Amino acid sequence: MTEPLSQAVGTAGDRRATDFMDIALDEARQAGDRGEVPVGAVLVRDGQIVARAGNETEAAGDPTAHAEILAIRRAAQAAGDARLPDCDLYVTLEPCAMCAAAISLARIRRLYFGAYDPKGGGVEHGARVFQQATCHHAPEVIGGLRETAAGDLLRGFFKERR
Amino acid sequence: MTEPLSQAVGTAGDRRATDFMDIALDEARQAGDRGEVPVGAVLVRDGQIVARAGNETEAAGDPTAHAEILAIRRAAQAAGDARLPDCDLYVTLEPCAMCAAAISLARIRRLYFGAYDPKGGGVEHGARVFQQATCHHAPEVIGGLRETAAGDLLRGFFKERR
Repeated sequence: MTEPLSQAVGTAGDRRATDFMDIALDEARQAGDRGEVPVGAVLVRDGQIVARAGNETEAAGDPTAHAEILAIRRAAQAAGDARLPDCDLYVTLEPCAMCAAAISLARIRRLYFGAYDPKGGGVEHGARVFQQATCHHAPEVIGGLRETAAGDLLRGFFKERR
Repeated sequence: MTEPLSQAVGTAGDRRATDFMDIALDEARQAGDRGEVPVGAVLVRDGQIVARAGNETEAAGDPTAHAEILAIRRAAQAAGDARLPDCDLYVTLEPCAMCAAAISLARIRRLYFGAYDPKGGGVEHGARVFQQATCHHAPEVIGGLRETAAGDLLRGFFKERR
């Protein structure tokens, strides 16, 4: 498997970012093994993981149980604060509009995502939540980190289901 | 208190809609009494309330704990199904982009909301989630139901806080 884009990012002095994304990819794989759409997320504060989650919409019977929402909810509840301005989020897929808006509400500092999602994404596509005048906080966004691995995981999952 | 808009809606053969919105307003008032931004939501299936909630972001320390998200999550978990295509949502304020996207993901049939929210709304303002080509399900939207009561509640809350 060759990953020119993510390798380029990964070797540019940002080794830890790819490490965290690899952990998010592990969460995504575990979600896929449970029959969920394979998306994973990791929340990091000061180089430490404060929450990690895979998609749980099917198991929880909850349309809001996307990996990002679960990670944010867990980290915020653990911190006792609805705002996480010193946290960075790593997620394997471009967040949808729901998750992008939650990232904004939580005041997440930086968003790293893997694969782009032209059909369902709300960051670089569709609602483009962070680019709206009504968006009160936009994180720094780094897209395409470990893009190939994240995309392969999703493609493999949907191919099996067809 | 005069409410020309909501009265007009309420007397147009849609009495039950205003009744459900009044229950959402009760949830909003209770949220305000707890020190939360006063927003309330009610989910209805076949004329029966299946979930009701007020905003809990402060108490829960959870930026995703908006009234709409809580109502959807509770109803979906009770139904054991992440999709609620036969449900209508009544919420006192125009949903933000997070909640609008959650409403779409949950396949809610119809959305009634009270006050418009030019600063934070994601339905008629900002991200306009339901109007995006990437939005896979858009509910029927009825805005401005009991608009004055919903707006008065929010204005009163923020006036006290200043």
